[in-house]
Amino acid sequence: MTSHETRFRVRYAETDQMGVVYYANYLIWMEVGRAEYCRAAGIPYKDMELGDGIRLAVVDAHCRYMYPDRYDEEIALTTSIQQSNHRMIEFDYRIRNAQTGQTLANGETKHIYLGHDMRPKKLPEKYFRAFGVRQASGLPDATGQT
Amino acid sequence: MTSHETRFRVRYAETDQMGVVYYANYLIWMEVGRAEYCRAAGIPYKDMELGDGIRLAVVDAHCRYMYPDRYDEEIALTTSIQQSNHRMIEFDYRIRNAQTGQTLANGETKHIYLGHDMRPKKLPEKYFRAFGVRQASGLPDATGQT
Amino acid sequence: MTSHETRFRVRYAETDQMGVVYYANYLIWMEVGRAEYCRAAGIPYKDMELGDGIRLAVVDAHCRYMYPDRYDEEIALTTSIQQSNHRMIEFDYRIRNAQTGQTLANGETKHIYLGHDMRPKKLPEKYFRAFGVRQASGLPDATGQT
Amino acid sequence: MTSHETRFRVRYAETDQMGVVYYANYLIWMEVGRAEYCRAAGIPYKDMELGDGIRLAVVDAHCRYMYPDRYDEEIALTTSIQQSNHRMIEFDYRIRNAQTGQTLANGETKHIYLGHDMRPKKLPEKYFRAFGVRQASGLPDATGQT
Repeated sequence: MTSHETRFRVRYAETDQMGVVYYANYLIWMEVGRAEYCRAAGIPYKDMELGDGIRLAVVDAHCRYMYPDRYDEEIALTTSIQQSNHRMIEFDYRIRNAQTGQTLANGETKHIYLGHDMRPKKLPEKYFRAFGVRQASGLPDATGQT
Repeated sequence: MTSHETRFRVRYAETDQMGVVYYANYLIWMEVGRAEYCRAAGIPYKDMELGDGIRLAVVDAHCRYMYPDRYDEEIALTTSIQQSNHRMIEFDYRIRNAQTGQTLANGETKHIYLGHDMRPKKLPEKYFRAFGVRQASGLPDATGQT
Repeated sequence: MTSHETRFRVRYAETDQMGVVYYANYLIWMEVGRAEYCRAAGIPYKDMELGDGIRLAVVDAHCRYMYPDRYDEEIALTTSIQQSNHRMIEFDYRIRNAQTGQTLANGETKHIYLGHDMRPKKLPEKYFRAFGVRQASGLPDATGQT
Repeated sequence: MTSHETRFRVRYAETDQMGVVYYANYLIWMEVGRAEYCRAAGIPYKDMELGDGIRLAVVDAHCRYMYPDRYDEEIALTTSIQQSNHRMIEFDYRIRNAQTGQTLANGETKHIYLGHDMRPKKLPEKYFRAFGVRQASGLPDATGQT
């Protein structure tokens, strides 16, 4: 799987008095995007947390706002994995108006894996395929880290 | 202590495209009000959760909206305990414009005490005084429950 | 139309450190419920605001919390009109776990109609049918008010 | 004025089930930070919007998360202007634990000025000093743009 699209409508709660979507809400949508990406890849994020005690802790979030979103618009959010290894994962996102196709915003979030104890933890191998992580082989992975 | 006032300003994030505060945010303010009430009564809510594993789980919330709040207004929020026993507590709230004194909204929240296991738990006696709970004495407490 | 059901999943953003949905978010869901009710009744709320300058200003909100909602659960939210006339409308809501059918919460919101100027306004007759308002006839409407 | 510090406590609503502050809320805090910066510089943001119809529309937001914030912690948020001209402004932010001084996160937001019509607008000269914009003089301003 290289990318996944999910759709939803802008809630009234998500607007502000400028009449457009308040900027922090895009990060909430990104969370929805990566949750749906994981579900589509066969590993609901809930199961990662509950089953293996793996948490995706965000270390970096970035969003570029191009065109304002408005109340009740249908949003098409495309989520992809930009890079990934057994210690971190980076998602990127494109937020479009589902009707017109116009790009409204894009961004990225970077995450490390934490265990129950909130300390860094290696991603278990059973998740490698879904997250596009190369098998450990003594060779550097896609991100140039071993 | 019979009531406690806390003050804060309306955030831009809390407005919606009607140009006023979005209605769900009043419940967030009520949470701030009861946290500050507890702190002023000598028992920070954080310590209840961390120290004794006591959680205040809401079972009922009610808000009456009289006059719209606007961005950047300073809000004066008064929190009181309406009733309380070793199993539940009810707070009430008055939300006013700090400058004009005008009442903007009022409401109540009702809570039961839960333990670590998310099951009902009796409030430890050391909290009775702060929360206005009568000592157990075989007599009914303020709410008519034993 | 007497009631409308809409479904969605609990977002991570909507949980709190108690591990359940934070209580103010139920009011956001109620907003989603009434927006979808209006859309299903043929009058998207957005069109009311943009087209006729009618705003649904909340004057009362009430929620009873029975059982905690958790991250990623699919929620089935049923919205109905409880009472309605040309000056106000009251919606009621039932929030259930879509898989088990268990009722998690229920509540009501009461609204008055405001115009562009944020002052009370009579609901235009073209909305009467969708909102279950009786035609003006000299007789009291469903709520006993003329 | 080169930087401004504002303080507040983490709200329960701002935590998530990981037991820490949900990542989108940092962008809300940044909004609080720049509002307080503007107020301290003598130009409440509310007055810019109401008085001159100037809106600060965000075009870019970035946050690096270093150490988790927890419920009820007192946060010290330092806001500075990184660059500024008559068409745009960039704020940067440092989020610290007020008690320990530990840096928890930092970030930047970039904004352009819009008018009532939501189209780009030059910043009126009366705001230049407060926002560190050089007087128009035929020379490039601090950002190397004319």
